[in-house]
Amino acid sequence: MASWNVTIDLTRGDEDGPTFVRIARAITDDIRRGRLRAGDALPGTRTLASSLGVHRNTVLAAYRELFAEGWIASEKARGTFVSVEIPEPEPKRFSARAAEAREIAARPGYDVVDPARSLGRDRGAGALALAAEARMRTVLAPPPRGRGAIATDTLMTLGGGVPDVRLVPAGELARAIRRVLRRSALAVLSYGDPEGPVALRRAVAKMVSATRGVAAREDHVLVARGSQMGIDLVARTLLAPGDVVAVEALGYRPAWEALRAGGARLVPVPVDAHGIDVVALERLAAATPIRGVYVTPHHQFPTTTTLAPARRLRLLELARERRFWVLEDDYDHEFHYEGRPVLPLASADVHGVVVYVGTLSKVLAPGMRIGFVVAPVPVIERLAATRRIVDRQGDYLLETAIAELVEEGEVQRHVRRAKRVYAERRARLASLLEAELGGVLSFALPSGGTAIWARVASDVAVDVWAARALERAALVLQPARQFAFDGRSRPFLRLGFAQHEEREAREAVRRMVSALPRRAAGA
Amino acid sequence: MASWNVTIDLTRGDEDGPTFVRIARAITDDIRRGRLRAGDALPGTRTLASSLGVHRNTVLAAYRELFAEGWIASEKARGTFVSVEIPEPEPKRFSARAAEAREIAARPGYDVVDPARSLGRDRGAGALALAAEARMRTVLAPPPRGRGAIATDTLMTLGGGVPDVRLVPAGELARAIRRVLRRSALAVLSYGDPEGPVALRRAVAKMVSATRGVAAREDHVLVARGSQMGIDLVARTLLAPGDVVAVEALGYRPAWEALRAGGARLVPVPVDAHGIDVVALERLAAATPIRGVYVTPHHQFPTTTTLAPARRLRLLELARERRFWVLEDDYDHEFHYEGRPVLPLASADVHGVVVYVGTLSKVLAPGMRIGFVVAPVPVIERLAATRRIVDRQGDYLLETAIAELVEEGEVQRHVRRAKRVYAERRARLASLLEAELGGVLSFALPSGGTAIWARVASDVAVDVWAARALERAALVLQPARQFAFDGRSRPFLRLGFAQHEEREAREAVRRMVSALPRRAAGA
Repeated sequence: MASWNVTIDLTRGDEDGPTFVRIARAITDDIRRGRLRAGDALPGTRTLASSLGVHRNTVLAAYRELFAEGWIASEKARGTFVSVEIPEPEPKRFSARAAEAREIAARPGYDVVDPARSLGRDRGAGALALAAEARMRTVLAPPPRGRGAIATDTLMTLGGGVPDVRLVPAGELARAIRRVLRRSALAVLSYGDPEGPVALRRAVAKMVSATRGVAAREDHVLVARGSQMGIDLVARTLLAPGDVVAVEALGYRPAWEALRAGGARLVPVPVDAHGIDVVALERLAAATPIRGVYVTPHHQFPTTTTLAPARRLRLLELARERRFWVLEDDYDHEFHYEGRPVLPLASADVHGVVVYVGTLSKVLAPGMRIGFVVAPVPVIERLAATRRIVDRQGDYLLETAIAELVEEGEVQRHVRRAKRVYAERRARLASLLEAELGGVLSFALPSGGTAIWARVASDVAVDVWAARALERAALVLQPARQFAFDGRSRPFLRLGFAQHEEREAREAVRRMVSALPRRAAGA
Repeated sequence: MASWNVTIDLTRGDEDGPTFVRIARAITDDIRRGRLRAGDALPGTRTLASSLGVHRNTVLAAYRELFAEGWIASEKARGTFVSVEIPEPEPKRFSARAAEAREIAARPGYDVVDPARSLGRDRGAGALALAAEARMRTVLAPPPRGRGAIATDTLMTLGGGVPDVRLVPAGELARAIRRVLRRSALAVLSYGDPEGPVALRRAVAKMVSATRGVAAREDHVLVARGSQMGIDLVARTLLAPGDVVAVEALGYRPAWEALRAGGARLVPVPVDAHGIDVVALERLAAATPIRGVYVTPHHQFPTTTTLAPARRLRLLELARERRFWVLEDDYDHEFHYEGRPVLPLASADVHGVVVYVGTLSKVLAPGMRIGFVVAPVPVIERLAATRRIVDRQGDYLLETAIAELVEEGEVQRHVRRAKRVYAERRARLASLLEAELGGVLSFALPSGGTAIWARVASDVAVDVWAARALERAALVLQPARQFAFDGRSRPFLRLGFAQHEEREAREAVRRMVSALPRRAAGA
């Protein structure tokens, strides 16, 4: 094993993000170039810190990041190594991993559709699933905190992706709005730019640079009304009728609808326990020119898995080779409970193929639509031109107030509080489910997000369960079918844990149990 | 002249709007059916009031309404008559009026394009004019009120359509937001319906029923982000690629862009001193199936004229006969200074052909995007389905606060205040222009809106004037070309009066004068 020489240029300014991110990126670059290979040892943190002239904590942060992304592994007493899961240039060498992936993919719940064969047959299934989803339209506001019993006819949801708005610092928000109206009423009430107020664009650029490794200035940022508007603007701006866009076969339907409305022909790509199947995507791209791919790499929607490092790398390469864009939806970046959040694809995007969409709506409140797109300046300019005809501009009042809350660190404090609370709720729902439904559900604890993706025993009809829960127990359950491109049933449930206090979680699980259908005989 | 028998059924509930509107509508219905003809005398207000069993003021209000809309006329000592301008069933009888219209239309400034011939040649001209408009993108916030001199390099705009946000009750707004956050934080911060909060839908329905004669319940209303989003939603929902949509040949470009983005092929229809030329529209519809027409009947944009009663009626009939929809943009309904605002087309729409778009952004503040669509329930439902993929929903916090301000009458009080101020400013700008530029500009005082449409003397190059004003005097002027579908120049300026206090109006006119180009010799 040749010794590895550090070649990180830390003399440049801060514009490429914090030092630890630059160190991490330099290491992944070297892995990519083959200067570091699977199994190679990395220098100790003290050694590397001293040779780079940085604090040891900086190197520790870089290593933690690489560990979280799966690039490196550590073994007790032996030190830190480049992960054996890192891809070699020749895909064939990965037969072992590919076989494993196929094995996983063959399990119900993960899609095994051959994307090349599914071209053009998405409409009907989509409509079917949409009809099924229609009942889900009303997602209710939570009741106030309280100790009394929950009335049995109060509709509850165990759907995922719902933050607890009771945690939102509403008083701080009201004060920020009042301050903005006192100080800058004329500016925020007048016409403004469709890209959003400079204050919020700057705050977002700073935030994604500092915490997500995405080197952005304010002119790389467009403030949108939630990630949904970001996706819709991309669809309306970067698509021509008939363009093929690849999507996750289990995925986020409102994004699909926006892409379709923009003229896309959608093709599903299987998703397995490591995220979207990039080998399948590669086959698809070889068979059909594709214009873009829509992905949720951080916490795959709805399965909650994180895209494997090998796939991240290959996806970016593939996008460059085949000249398609990657629409990365990082809809709940902050809510990651095992170590730091994994950096987005956009942080490793040296070729400018990624359009990155994020949101504060999940962090703060779904009813406040504050999202953003980070992309190269010409893309932002084109999106802004489209935005002008959609609603001309955002709400400068609200957006400027949110910029203040970000600048003051109030949003970040709220995220830390919410993360602590959600981590507890994740553990609590997991143990409630194990205790009450251990024989029916099996799942791994998700490393992030707001939901558990649970397999349902094969002798339980999951869609019947969901229907009975709604009709008999006033409980919304989300079976896998709702997220399936082909509209077919799969024995999985997406169970949200973020929105419920303990007594609510207990009541929700009690209702789940009460609605459990009779199990099939002989199973 | 046969005596006219009143046949108004006032026994129905209030759902059709206030009594005076129902009386007015019954009379126009009878004119339409031929039971009342041009020149017929109407009963005196006392007589009619007594035979209907209503207060005389109610009949007076109905007559005032009909007078404002042009259906009836009054002569001293002789009483009230059906207006001679009301159309007879046979269009040919209107040769006199048509000739007059053609004469007016032949004047530069009003479009004389034959719409049937202009099919498909809008793209290039649109792009040209858009480029010209690009300089107009930044519309500045006004400076705070003050008495000091205005620095000569402070950019000012004499563009139209800009309300004075200094009049907005910002304190009331901040208090309403705080109240909503205290009382209903959970509801407004959670997911909601794409149609908007019920409170605001209900307030809008009440407002348009009470003051605009549009019988609407809350489920006829979708709250959109300004009229722009209403238009964009209609374009995305009600159009298929290649559908022909007729637009005013001098008109509102952002609406055109939204319609084009929805797939429309736009065809311009001439506009003259009585609004859109409905005879030309009729010829167009006979030659080409059209899917819809986009109009600004109340204060035609940009020429400020009100659509003549004969044309209102014919437009609605034509839409029914030819089965196209009428997208009515009533963007500044409240700002009407001569009597009451004219009721919208939607108020006389018995066949459900009108989709009505309004906004509070002009009334309150452009930076707060609060608009609405009023349409039959199935249309609202389809628009809401589209809205779901655009940005999922509006800002419930802001929208609920606005609903409170409407319910409390605060918005209405603001409208009354603003109207009084704008009426003064209209008169002031008119007299400043007459005093300083009387030899160059000629115009009629507009009965409503926020701008004067002024003809520029033929020996003054209007586009040169606008360019010089921007470059040498930091003043934005809007020449007719910016609003022209064909992108050609016309000797008119749209001059906004709403945004300027006296000293500002004086300074703006001073700058206009200073930028006036040398007049052509021999003119």
